Amino acid sequence: MKLARSCFASLFCIVAMTSLSAAAHAQSPTAAELKEAAGKAPPATALQAGDPGGTITGTINDVPVSDSKTGLTIGDLANLAGQNKIAINFVWTLLCGFLVMFMQAGFAMVESGLTRVKNANHTYMMNFFVYGCGLLAYWLIGFAIQMGGSAGNTNLGGLAPLTGEHTVALFGKTWGLFGATGMFLSGHSYDVGVMVIFLFEMVFMDTALTIVTGACAERWKFFTFSVTSVLMGAFTYPLFGNWAWGGGWLAQLGTNLGLGKGYCDFAGSGVVHAVGGLTALAVCFMVGPRIGKFNRDGSSNMIIGHDISAVLIGCFILAFGWFGFNPGSTLGASTSGNLRIGSIAVDTMLAGCTGTFGALLYMWILKGKPDASMSVNGMLAGLVAITAPSGFVSATGAAIIGLVAGVLVCISVAFIENVMKVDDPVGAISVHGTNGLWGVLAVGLFADGTSNYGGAWNGVTGSVTGLFYGDASQLAAQLVGISTLLGFVFTFSFALNYVLEYFLGHRVSVETELKGLDIPELGQLGYPEFVFVPEPDVLRQAERQFAVA
Amino acid sequence: MKLARSCFASLFCIVAMTSLSAAAHAQSPTAAELKEAAGKAPPATALQAGDPGGTITGTINDVPVSDSKTGLTIGDLANLAGQNKIAINFVWTLLCGFLVMFMQAGFAMVESGLTRVKNANHTYMMNFFVYGCGLLAYWLIGFAIQMGGSAGNTNLGGLAPLTGEHTVALFGKTWGLFGATGMFLSGHSYDVGVMVIFLFEMVFMDTALTIVTGACAERWKFFTFSVTSVLMGAFTYPLFGNWAWGGGWLAQLGTNLGLGKGYCDFAGSGVVHAVGGLTALAVCFMVGPRIGKFNRDGSSNMIIGHDISAVLIGCFILAFGWFGFNPGSTLGASTSGNLRIGSIAVDTMLAGCTGTFGALLYMWILKGKPDASMSVNGMLAGLVAITAPSGFVSATGAAIIGLVAGVLVCISVAFIENVMKVDDPVGAISVHGTNGLWGVLAVGLFADGTSNYGGAWNGVTGSVTGLFYGDASQLAAQLVGISTLLGFVFTFSFALNYVLEYFLGHRVSVETELKGLDIPELGQLGYPEFVFVPEPDVLRQAERQFAVA
Amino acid sequence: MKLARSCFASLFCIVAMTSLSAAAHAQSPTAAELKEAAGKAPPATALQAGDPGGTITGTINDVPVSDSKTGLTIGDLANLAGQNKIAINFVWTLLCGFLVMFMQAGFAMVESGLTRVKNANHTYMMNFFVYGCGLLAYWLIGFAIQMGGSAGNTNLGGLAPLTGEHTVALFGKTWGLFGATGMFLSGHSYDVGVMVIFLFEMVFMDTALTIVTGACAERWKFFTFSVTSVLMGAFTYPLFGNWAWGGGWLAQLGTNLGLGKGYCDFAGSGVVHAVGGLTALAVCFMVGPRIGKFNRDGSSNMIIGHDISAVLIGCFILAFGWFGFNPGSTLGASTSGNLRIGSIAVDTMLAGCTGTFGALLYMWILKGKPDASMSVNGMLAGLVAITAPSGFVSATGAAIIGLVAGVLVCISVAFIENVMKVDDPVGAISVHGTNGLWGVLAVGLFADGTSNYGGAWNGVTGSVTGLFYGDASQLAAQLVGISTLLGFVFTFSFALNYVLEYFLGHRVSVETELKGLDIPELGQLGYPEFVFVPEPDVLRQAERQFAVA
Repeated sequence: MKLARSCFASLFCIVAMTSLSAAAHAQSPTAAELKEAAGKAPPATALQAGDPGGTITGTINDVPVSDSKTGLTIGDLANLAGQNKIAINFVWTLLCGFLVMFMQAGFAMVESGLTRVKNANHTYMMNFFVYGCGLLAYWLIGFAIQMGGSAGNTNLGGLAPLTGEHTVALFGKTWGLFGATGMFLSGHSYDVGVMVIFLFEMVFMDTALTIVTGACAERWKFFTFSVTSVLMGAFTYPLFGNWAWGGGWLAQLGTNLGLGKGYCDFAGSGVVHAVGGLTALAVCFMVGPRIGKFNRDGSSNMIIGHDISAVLIGCFILAFGWFGFNPGSTLGASTSGNLRIGSIAVDTMLAGCTGTFGALLYMWILKGKPDASMSVNGMLAGLVAITAPSGFVSATGAAIIGLVAGVLVCISVAFIENVMKVDDPVGAISVHGTNGLWGVLAVGLFADGTSNYGGAWNGVTGSVTGLFYGDASQLAAQLVGISTLLGFVFTFSFALNYVLEYFLGHRVSVETELKGLDIPELGQLGYPEFVFVPEPDVLRQAERQFAVA
Repeated sequence: MKLARSCFASLFCIVAMTSLSAAAHAQSPTAAELKEAAGKAPPATALQAGDPGGTITGTINDVPVSDSKTGLTIGDLANLAGQNKIAINFVWTLLCGFLVMFMQAGFAMVESGLTRVKNANHTYMMNFFVYGCGLLAYWLIGFAIQMGGSAGNTNLGGLAPLTGEHTVALFGKTWGLFGATGMFLSGHSYDVGVMVIFLFEMVFMDTALTIVTGACAERWKFFTFSVTSVLMGAFTYPLFGNWAWGGGWLAQLGTNLGLGKGYCDFAGSGVVHAVGGLTALAVCFMVGPRIGKFNRDGSSNMIIGHDISAVLIGCFILAFGWFGFNPGSTLGASTSGNLRIGSIAVDTMLAGCTGTFGALLYMWILKGKPDASMSVNGMLAGLVAITAPSGFVSATGAAIIGLVAGVLVCISVAFIENVMKVDDPVGAISVHGTNGLWGVLAVGLFADGTSNYGGAWNGVTGSVTGLFYGDASQLAAQLVGISTLLGFVFTFSFALNYVLEYFLGHRVSVETELKGLDIPELGQLGYPEFVFVPEPDVLRQAERQFAVA
Repeated sequence: MKLARSCFASLFCIVAMTSLSAAAHAQSPTAAELKEAAGKAPPATALQAGDPGGTITGTINDVPVSDSKTGLTIGDLANLAGQNKIAINFVWTLLCGFLVMFMQAGFAMVESGLTRVKNANHTYMMNFFVYGCGLLAYWLIGFAIQMGGSAGNTNLGGLAPLTGEHTVALFGKTWGLFGATGMFLSGHSYDVGVMVIFLFEMVFMDTALTIVTGACAERWKFFTFSVTSVLMGAFTYPLFGNWAWGGGWLAQLGTNLGLGKGYCDFAGSGVVHAVGGLTALAVCFMVGPRIGKFNRDGSSNMIIGHDISAVLIGCFILAFGWFGFNPGSTLGASTSGNLRIGSIAVDTMLAGCTGTFGALLYMWILKGKPDASMSVNGMLAGLVAITAPSGFVSATGAAIIGLVAGVLVCISVAFIENVMKVDDPVGAISVHGTNGLWGVLAVGLFADGTSNYGGAWNGVTGSVTGLFYGDASQLAAQLVGISTLLGFVFTFSFALNYVLEYFLGHRVSVETELKGLDIPELGQLGYPEFVFVPEPDVLRQAERQFAVA
């Protein structure tokens, strides 16, 4: 029938054009059909009486007509379909980004709840101010470094202005190093799509920064913390972020070297959590353990947090925000296989659940009682570990990954305290560092090859597939990522903060620390009207030992 | 004109096919029109300069082309429209589900805030761990029982894999009993649509479980609580859930017996709240009142909660999450009359408001002062009561339902404490049980027949209509639901927990209870650095009486 | 080709209609093409095996067919596109509205955290109950006054029932004064679109109300507070809201007098925050300063809040909710230039960040230490100030606006306390009043003319453009708005509350205030089991002075 019409066009066109030019100005066939359809729709007057059932709202009448003379055309329809697609993806990405921003409240509560009341204001304030520090640094330069070369994302309309990736040629291949477009979001970057990706990436970056404040709490100078945060938001995080997500060399391991689909980190077990956790470890080395944490003989004392309710509610806020973190990392819901968002959300939920079980049961067996703090760390460990694989694994895979994470975090906390003699008041290094690396590794094992995000990942056709499903080369790509995290990110972070140690110093004075940081650093207590118990004897003894030494 | 073209096809087809086969390979008429329309859209290069006003982003250029040779077709357009519809519905259902998950934090705060500080860690931890217990149980078996036969939902793309409802024939009709597809979300259930419905139903189930932890707080063994939660998430909740929402026999009361549109419970006043509240009552019978709650003469003492700020903020979190609970229960926003979501949200808000007014004024008149705890219970009662009718009633109807709920919850709290001599520290039985039943009943009274969810409900054509709007048979269906809740759910729940009482015991030891459950059960206090006042004399006396007895 | 077909229609129509009437019943050409496309889509049976990758879900099969005889038509496609557009806009507006409602929790925490523990229950309860008071008043009458004449919004399907604006003729022009449709949401207002706009506007109104509770905390009668809130939600707020957003005279300054695009207030720096802040000032004048705040010599004492953790977490909740407040004020995501939502979100985030920096650094320089409370007020001031301009300014503009706000709030707090001798325990007048006005002004300066919301604003073609980008008349419109806020809103609010002062009295008794309002007003303490320190000497002295006086 298509043929028929084409043929007809050839035979009768001349006659038609001469004899019927007036009628010819009429609408195209589809416009006529659309006009007919619009005639069947309820008239605008019907809507004035109200539409409680929603049966006459949202019809052909709501399709914008670009040219009122010709009326509604199929082109208008196509424009609306395209607009709807982009709008859905903007809505999804933004709302998920908002949820991630809210995680800052969760981190503040978990970290502060796990530290002592004499430092409550200080710990809360670091968590509060890190949001501003990170955002400013990222707006100035970080975003440009990370995402400046990420043009081509069809979910968000193309991100066409972001074409500034700097590359280097090596082994006959081109490798991305860092981006350089988008500073201040000005010029060409003043673009509706760029704004959406900026918001989403910004809140991820801030999550990484806030990990450090927990590990270094109760003895970190507020000013040095601020500078560390700015540097991390401007350089450390964006660099690795570019390599993994901004078109950089880790993402190119697949296209350039044939290693799976390149380094795959769906929502950032590596980019966000391992970067945060390893930076926390680096600064912890510099800032040293809290007075009283370790005895002279090297044994450690337990220092209990002041508010378990904040810890548990904070963890719920984090779990809530994680539903933005992982499912939102599709950057869209419509087209490109993005309907997998439900699966990603379920994987996230399940791994958090099995992580809780893993840690709770491990501690129950070990200590005879379930432990609230470690249960929280178990949930968080599961959530961290599933972050990278969440887009690629089955529900069962997610459950296993989370269960391993829940046990691993308990072992890691003990190892870091007892073997490495590093004092991490909240377990951030174990939760985010150790389990961030475990998550990156898990992609290379559990990715089951069922996902399809437009048919390719990192430019390599096919679905991400781990060792257990037949692609050993994916595991290799993941190991390159892990090596980069341990080798480069940790070293770079250590070096940056070593400079700060030299110029500013990371540690508050002994007097400040013993008194609590709230008054000396910020001039105000967290809960000025409440009465508190004296510190436990064991801590006071350890502090006295320190004073003597 | 349609006719004309058809006729043309018949007359000229042969000529056309032989003489113009080359040109015939050209695009279809609509493809040509689409090509023309695409030509008018801004070129990709225009986007590189940035689009701050959003005027050239989201156009025909964003419609994915399935075959680059033929270019954009009307089929591509239709595929995108279908994809957009499903994506919108996924986005809505998932984000609403995330809000419901966040309610766990609200429940934790309300319940713990209303209990004593010596049990703070324990009450928070039950609320924390119930999420993991419930999720695990539901993933293993609960979801399959509840939703295993719910194929056919067009909002979410069909849910085609869920075809496993087990039925029984009775009175010449087929009745659904329970589903059996979807265990572990593996096999055919590994499906993007199934994942979305799993997430949404899972968080609802968890809401029901967490109701029990409040009513039994301050004396429930942590281990027994865990087992109760697993059993409830695996069996009690899913069974009734199947009957009401999974295609089971209660939903079939309309098609099978002509009772209205079958049992109608839009978002779960019955399925979630009454099931939770009645299970709470069953376990409360077993676990008994707290030491000191009742004096020897049967009179009761007031036991005040330790943190009214947590109670009020927790209530706000619950009200926030309820916007996911009720409006999200459409399972979509596009098509099928789902645009009613705004009305559902307003109904929810209004009933919560009038519930607050009802309880606050009732207590103000009764006691001379507004009472914070009962105001919270009033809001929650209004929210619980509107949950079932929210999809079917007007704003005024919602306001009345909420107002009744606010007064009812005050009366119910007094009745349960003074007449039934049951100790419910947070009022959960009254809020969720009593008002859950009131909500179910209210559907049969206030449903106004204006809703239209694709033209039918539970397979019966027409809109849900209550007694006040002319359909007495709907009220009958609701009464069958209420009878099932009181008769089956309560009994089943009682029996399950009676077995646990025998094997595990529900109640902690007297020593543990008097000391507070935090240290004996969990090894840690909620606020270890804060100083607390001694218990009030009246409680200590009552406790002494108990010790003597 | 279009011509050809039209000509064909003329030539062959008669023949066709007579000879082929049976075949003519066949589908239209597009229906045929759609049928062909549907044939290529995966069959329903394929979906039964599960679709983990989301590749066969959401296709042409999901487009609802209105008439199964003719099959899928282009009209069905257009109806779905229109439905999808409205559904996206409903989803966006509702979810953003939910976020705004959650801000109530943030306000409660910030305000209560900044006040003393002896009034904790009272301050939390005012924040809790204001939600119910405002909602009820707005449902009864406020919404009708504000939005009763706002028909014509294409984002939400037209809002056709809202046609009730009352106007007055002046200077030969028609000016809107107030609306009068939508009371109780009954009658024609029982409409899916009206419900969405009601919800969104309602939560905005409640935000304005809650501002007053902070400024008047620690000495305001609960009953009088309730009545004030009802009056404000019923009259004060809706009146100005109508003038700015409901089609009233301020919005008409552009069409009627050629002042820019009329008064422009994207999300309510003026409508919400200045109205709230100025009402707070009016009531503060009446309620007077707290006992102990000012010494006999006019100098003031610092009264420290009891819970800095609540203040900081509350602020995070507010910043989270502001992502609904500002971006949601587009009332849609699809079409009409609404894709700018990402830009609005980024502006919001940036201004909050620079506001924090401004206040934190200002206080650091002034006092030698960063101050937690003022950092929070700095963030809030930045967020308030960007609220009006967020839809019209660049990222850099937003950063500047926020930075100014951060410094301005510190100066304003000092001015109001030391010069005006007004006691505002939480700084609400400075945060919302001063910076609300600054935000309104900032539109007239920084609006950069790049936005495009359907090509016009307030009925004036073109984009909102401030002085710095060439349109001085916009600044004039903004100044008219500011004058109206200072002249009318403040006066009207003062008068209303003066009447209440006469009949009810705003201030609690001296005994009540010294004891703390919790027990006398509400019968319960906020934290009944915690032990508190005595009041600081300086306050006790000031109180004694007061008693002597």
